Amino acid sequence: MESSYPQPLVMVDIALFTIRDKRLSLILTRRKEPPFEGLLALPGGFVHVQEDADTEAAARRVIRGKIGFDAPYLEQLFTFSGVARDPRGWSVSVVYYALVPWALLERNASVELCPVEALPSLPFDHQQIVAKAMERLRGKATYSSLPAFLLPGEFTMNDLHGIYQQTIGARLDKASFRHKILEQDIIEEIPRRFRTGAHRPAQLYRLSSKALTAFERKI
Amino acid sequence: MESSYPQPLVMVDIALFTIRDKRLSLILTRRKEPPFEGLLALPGGFVHVQEDADTEAAARRVIRGKIGFDAPYLEQLFTFSGVARDPRGWSVSVVYYALVPWALLERNASVELCPVEALPSLPFDHQQIVAKAMERLRGKATYSSLPAFLLPGEFTMNDLHGIYQQTIGARLDKASFRHKILEQDIIEEIPRRFRTGAHRPAQLYRLSSKALTAFERKI
Repeated sequence: MESSYPQPLVMVDIALFTIRDKRLSLILTRRKEPPFEGLLALPGGFVHVQEDADTEAAARRVIRGKIGFDAPYLEQLFTFSGVARDPRGWSVSVVYYALVPWALLERNASVELCPVEALPSLPFDHQQIVAKAMERLRGKATYSSLPAFLLPGEFTMNDLHGIYQQTIGARLDKASFRHKILEQDIIEEIPRRFRTGAHRPAQLYRLSSKALTAFERKI
Repeated sequence: MESSYPQPLVMVDIALFTIRDKRLSLILTRRKEPPFEGLLALPGGFVHVQEDADTEAAARRVIRGKIGFDAPYLEQLFTFSGVARDPRGWSVSVVYYALVPWALLERNASVELCPVEALPSLPFDHQQIVAKAMERLRGKATYSSLPAFLLPGEFTMNDLHGIYQQTIGARLDKASFRHKILEQDIIEEIPRRFRTGAHRPAQLYRLSSKALTAFERKI
C-alpha cells in the first residue's frame, strides 16, 4: 500500500508582518532547540495531527502561541519542500503570511521584531520564504485593502497613505492615492469621528463592510 | 523531540488542463486502488522521499507518468490539508496546475479527458481543488501569456483569441484583444510564416522571448 512510504516531516512557518516606527517588520522567534538553536527564525512548528484540523489551524495555533491572539489577516503563501531545506530530513513547510497592527503587539514584551530591510541571516530556507512573502504582500497591497489590516480599527487618510507607502516600499502621490482608495469602497468614514491634534481635525475612517467581507472569505 | 510526532501523509495532485474541441478540459485518472477505486480523479500520488527532490519534482514525475512528457507550464496552486480530506488519514496535498497543448496529447489513447463544465463528481476534495484551479487560471489568463501554453508552438491570432475565450469562459472583442496582446509583447510574428486555407493567408505567431523568459522563471 502506497501510504507505507516513509513520509516527510510536515510543518508550518509564518511570515508575521507589522509596521513599527513606519518600518515594515517581521516578528521573529529565537530558536530554543537544534537545529540552529539560538538563531532568530520565522515562527513555526510541526503540524500536530491529533490537535490541528488542517495546516491553517496549525498556523493559527503557532501565531496564538507567539503573540497571544489571532492575526486579523492570515493567508496561505506557498509550500516549500524538499530534502535539503531542513537538516532533520525531507520536509514540507506550508507557509502562511499574516498582518498584525503594532498597536495590538506593543504590550507583548517578548516579541522580537526586525525591519524587513535589516533582517539577520535566517536559517533553513527562511530567507527565500521572506522574499516570496514580500513579493506577495507588495503585489497584493497596491490594489487591495490588505495594508489596512496593519492599522488599528480607526485611522486617518494620512495613516493609511503612510502604511501603504511603508508596505509597498515606495512613495505614492497623496491626491491620487486618496482618489483610488475612495473609488474602491474599501474604507468608509466613521460618522462624526475626528482625530484632533496640532493640525486641523482629521476625519477617521474604518474598513468598509465590503473589505471586511472579502477578508472574512479569506479567514 | 518535536519530529517524533506522527506525521501526515504527503501527496501531490495535479489539475492538468488542455483545450480539445474548443472546450477547456481536465485530464483525469481512473483510480486503480482504494479509496474510491474505479472513480475518476485528478492525477496524483504520494511524495517519494527517496526519489523526489521536492514536491514540484514529485508533480513532474506524476505528470510524466500520466502523459509521457513534461508539461510546458507548471505552477504551484495551493496546499490542501487536514484530517477530513482523505480516508487514509491526516494528509497534505500540495497541488499544482499545468497546461498542455492538445496537439501533444492526442496520440496518447489512454488519457481520460473531461470538459470542466461537465466533470463527474470527484472524490476527496478534488471538486474544491478544481474550483480553485479554475479561479487561478481565469484570474491569470486575462493579463498574461498563460493561455498561449495551451497552443502548439505556432498559432494564428485567431487561434490565440479562441484559446483565451475558451480559457476565460467569456467572449472577448477581437480588435481590442489583438491590440492588448500586441501591446504586451508576449507574442511575435514568425517572419514569412503564414497559414493558408479557405481564407486569406494568416500570419503565424509564436511566444516572444519575453514570455518564454517569464515562463522559464516559473519552471
